[in-house]
Amino acid sequence: MATVKLWSDEEAAAHPQVKAVFDDIRATRKSDFVNNFWRALANQPKLLERTWASVKQVMIEPGTLDPLTKELVYIAVSAANSCSYCVHSHTAAARAKGLTDAQYAEFLAIVGMAAETNNLANAMQIPVDREFTVE
Amino acid sequence: MATVKLWSDEEAAAHPQVKAVFDDIRATRKSDFVNNFWRALANQPKLLERTWASVKQVMIEPGTLDPLTKELVYIAVSAANSCSYCVHSHTAAARAKGLTDAQYAEFLAIVGMAAETNNLANAMQIPVDREFTVE
Amino acid sequence: MATVKLWSDEEAAAHPQVKAVFDDIRATRKSDFVNNFWRALANQPKLLERTWASVKQVMIEPGTLDPLTKELVYIAVSAANSCSYCVHSHTAAARAKGLTDAQYAEFLAIVGMAAETNNLANAMQIPVDREFTVE
Amino acid sequence: MATVKLWSDEEAAAHPQVKAVFDDIRATRKSDFVNNFWRALANQPKLLERTWASVKQVMIEPGTLDPLTKELVYIAVSAANSCSYCVHSHTAAARAKGLTDAQYAEFLAIVGMAAETNNLANAMQIPVDREFTVE
Amino acid sequence: MATVKLWSDEEAAAHPQVKAVFDDIRATRKSDFVNNFWRALANQPKLLERTWASVKQVMIEPGTLDPLTKELVYIAVSAANSCSYCVHSHTAAARAKGLTDAQYAEFLAIVGMAAETNNLANAMQIPVDREFTVE
Amino acid sequence: MATVKLWSDEEAAAHPQVKAVFDDIRATRKSDFVNNFWRALANQPKLLERTWASVKQVMIEPGTLDPLTKELVYIAVSAANSCSYCVHSHTAAARAKGLTDAQYAEFLAIVGMAAETNNLANAMQIPVDREFTVE
Repeated sequence: MATVKLWSDEEAAAHPQVKAVFDDIRATRKSDFVNNFWRALANQPKLLERTWASVKQVMIEPGTLDPLTKELVYIAVSAANSCSYCVHSHTAAARAKGLTDAQYAEFLAIVGMAAETNNLANAMQIPVDREFTVE
Repeated sequence: MATVKLWSDEEAAAHPQVKAVFDDIRATRKSDFVNNFWRALANQPKLLERTWASVKQVMIEPGTLDPLTKELVYIAVSAANSCSYCVHSHTAAARAKGLTDAQYAEFLAIVGMAAETNNLANAMQIPVDREFTVE
Repeated sequence: MATVKLWSDEEAAAHPQVKAVFDDIRATRKSDFVNNFWRALANQPKLLERTWASVKQVMIEPGTLDPLTKELVYIAVSAANSCSYCVHSHTAAARAKGLTDAQYAEFLAIVGMAAETNNLANAMQIPVDREFTVE
Repeated sequence: MATVKLWSDEEAAAHPQVKAVFDDIRATRKSDFVNNFWRALANQPKLLERTWASVKQVMIEPGTLDPLTKELVYIAVSAANSCSYCVHSHTAAARAKGLTDAQYAEFLAIVGMAAETNNLANAMQIPVDREFTVE
Repeated sequence: MATVKLWSDEEAAAHPQVKAVFDDIRATRKSDFVNNFWRALANQPKLLERTWASVKQVMIEPGTLDPLTKELVYIAVSAANSCSYCVHSHTAAARAKGLTDAQYAEFLAIVGMAAETNNLANAMQIPVDREFTVE
Repeated sequence: MATVKLWSDEEAAAHPQVKAVFDDIRATRKSDFVNNFWRALANQPKLLERTWASVKQVMIEPGTLDPLTKELVYIAVSAANSCSYCVHSHTAAARAKGLTDAQYAEFLAIVGMAAETNNLANAMQIPVDREFTVE
């Protein structure tokens, strides 16, 4: 029920720009699986290329945040934005990166509580304390 | 410009239920500072009590996620919900817990990218891959 | 800091279509006060006219929901959408219609909890029970 | 398609903390039906316990807002947050509490209009009238 | 799985107010197809009538924005609000009005980037430049 | 009140990576004005560089959508996400690109109506018509 066609491997193979991205996804992840997000973006090769380059830089290249923390932040935004696809794909990714049931339980408690206090603060329009601002 | 009065320390001192929560906030955080969120919630003592008990359990009691990761998840939800107050208070909390500039830069890159792919997935209504679902 | 000019009474008086709406707002509400929302919409007279006609029909004409319940529903949506202006104007309206502190405290507890469980259900992508669907 | 397992009655019976909550849900609601939200939360027993305690206090204990008004506020937030599960469960709950077709029609008109004016006020960034603020 | 019944043509034919709207939808669009949105709103005839009148005025009556631009703006809001139904119906409408694959690709790039920078600006709480405000 | 420092021109001049982006912004826009969004992102030079490269490609490079349509889509997403900064900056940009008052009035009517019908469709959980799906 997507608004666009999902590209098969055969279709991707016939389009050099798309093929290059699919090949790099497989090589980077060391897996043959290319998920639907990329098969949908294949309809927009330039956007596919730029988005994959960004995801690779932001989520995969080593930095100062560990890979699991990155996934939790990603899921948190996705739940708040009610993105069913992104919640599913990044929860699976977090599990593949070692998310335990205990960690997931704590994570869920935080995203629930954050949404609760967000709505309370927005409903009462609480002014920001001077202590929280950057000089 | 809140929709409710922000309670002063004097007003809190005169209301045992509110005083008990303010006292516990100060003791738990080892700081005299009580931020506006609690001064606004003081108008609803029962809600104040329940919310503080939850925050204490979820954000402060030791668990399997480290305190900084918890704050990053909190900010991520707050930014997505456009809660100015919560973004400010939890970014300050994250900094107090040692958030470095490099970590903050990576965090911002993730929340930006998550919002981008959320909107793309929602705009294309991409179906969830069978591989991402729990049996 | 609006993106549009806020019309003064003098400017409104010089534009028959705008004047007619401002006059009706004053007559309907039995008050001389015309709030900024309408002064901003005055830049789009057709939209001003249609929006006021709808607000009048939905919020003011007697129906089966009492006026205070209507305002609470309005604030609930506005907090969830992080609309500072609407939260302020409709909380003031609810108070003018008799909202008590006890009712407001219960209302806040609900909007907080609803946001919390919304985020939990979205994060866990809980399937709808068959019992909740309409045949 | 949840990201977590939904607990069966057999699984719940084998876990005292979960069993106690399921038992209390059934006793409180005077019904054998335990909906999927709680079956999903059962994976996080501490969160299950805290969430049910809050729901019971906020939505079920008698207060100053009538039960139907509470449900309408809940649905309003859930629709704004695009929470399919919550919209379904609380619309069913509202119907069980006597929501008439006429009331539902008026409710829908309000949530639609609130979202409309939220977006208009956010798009025009209308400043809050001094009259709406609390001294 | 709607929360309301979807009206069949037979049911609509038996209700003059609903029939009149359905007839006008068909005449205006020069098509026999009446989509589910209107079949659901038929349960609230007054809301059905007002909503169709507004849609007709805003989306169909000629103005200064071309029909395709209007649909793109509509889809952009719908994706941000995670409204699956509206994304589907207005993407189909945009295609019927001539949306090309190249235009759709550019559109998707914009909605993704807007969401990204929205979240960045909200996360950093960037103050509005004086240059952007209306005197 | 940002959560980060806004870089002055002097600070930017001392950091080659930041200076290069600021220079390119000025050259591309043929204006000396560098707005706060970029002065905040300067704290994260890599994110600054990637974001500007994307904005340049998506919003400035000629394509099949005209520049004004692009800005309207951008504002629509920003209003839905309640991003005050983005609404201000892109409304100013749209005006600089020739947005007329009549076009702005029509645009506002669409974003208001889209939000209204989004909320109605989400509240009634209307199923997508088969006619709207891609084979």
